[in-house]
Amino acid sequence: MNKIVTISREFGSGGRELGKRLSDALGVPCYDNEIIEMITKEHGFDADYVAQISESGLKAMYPLTIGRRFSTSYTGLEQQVQVVVAQRKIIERLGEQGDCVIVGRCADVILAHLKPLRVFVYASQASKLDRCRKRAAESERLTPLEMERRMRRIDKNRAEQYDLVGGADCGARGSYDLCVNTSGKEIKTLIPALAEYARCWFGESGGGI
Amino acid sequence: MNKIVTISREFGSGGRELGKRLSDALGVPCYDNEIIEMITKEHGFDADYVAQISESGLKAMYPLTIGRRFSTSYTGLEQQVQVVVAQRKIIERLGEQGDCVIVGRCADVILAHLKPLRVFVYASQASKLDRCRKRAAESERLTPLEMERRMRRIDKNRAEQYDLVGGADCGARGSYDLCVNTSGKEIKTLIPALAEYARCWFGESGGGI
Repeated sequence: MNKIVTISREFGSGGRELGKRLSDALGVPCYDNEIIEMITKEHGFDADYVAQISESGLKAMYPLTIGRRFSTSYTGLEQQVQVVVAQRKIIERLGEQGDCVIVGRCADVILAHLKPLRVFVYASQASKLDRCRKRAAESERLTPLEMERRMRRIDKNRAEQYDLVGGADCGARGSYDLCVNTSGKEIKTLIPALAEYARCWFGESGGGI
Repeated sequence: MNKIVTISREFGSGGRELGKRLSDALGVPCYDNEIIEMITKEHGFDADYVAQISESGLKAMYPLTIGRRFSTSYTGLEQQVQVVVAQRKIIERLGEQGDCVIVGRCADVILAHLKPLRVFVYASQASKLDRCRKRAAESERLTPLEMERRMRRIDKNRAEQYDLVGGADCGARGSYDLCVNTSGKEIKTLIPALAEYARCWFGESGGGI
């Protein structure tokens, strides 16, 4: 069975960087935004549109006028569901293809039958705000309050996507094999240990992943 | 500053074994029941009495008759509080003495000023029941229901002891640096990775703890 590491994370905790660095250390591919590119390429959706569904969730694009909910926007919602289904199928295919690290997108639930090492990355609110501030481009600088709102919105939408794929409580420790607190830590300092954890987990300490 | 690893755990998750094996791998002392021995030796309390307070908490020894709460048993409670205070002082001293692993006893909160690596060990209910069943002596075999009750009672009392020392929510991931799910795993298979995690955490990957 393929050895798969899934990275679930709180927004701003450094989960994306951790996934990429861990895959480099293990010598396996990392799938993160690459999945958006695959959906775009294989199904013809616009990349920004797909990314927006990931960040804002399905409901955010419902029309505000309830009376119109099942008229003009039904097609819009249908298309969004198609994106979610396409994403699920791509993740299933990636899981069958070979050893890999997959960041986000409920891959831990979608690939549960392949017994992945399910890592959850989290951090204190202060640490997450600091990380977001440092990585934000000048053009998209948000105030701390705006940033906190954005973090809350994204985490909420991620949790809703867990509901959609039938996952258990998003962020509850029982849903993961290892929960890593990155508060005040440089991600790269934790990578040798996490790579070793993956090797121990899959029963090959000292060998490949 | 000394490098201290604290192990908090759910009853039956294998936290005690994990702490002992990790301390062996790191080449530092492990303090677990040794702390009970120290309290016994230094303060003259009976070892079983001290162990019982650890397992049953302070309140379990309150008299059932409320009217007598502040008469005959006040002294009993006072003595129990003395045990808790003695334990805290011993843990503070151990933290000052040198690198070590400390299992349970709210050491993560008591030694927070020394910035320990705070590990939380947990497992699924089925896995914990299975572990308890395997390690129980023939003479103290409990039914699954009795065992579940015991697990709940001990976890509840541990959480109450956190309240007593002023710790945050016991078991909440924000209170720990690393949360390890031992469900279905042999503890010893995880030790090389956890030892590496401790070394990475303290910034000495490849060296001593």
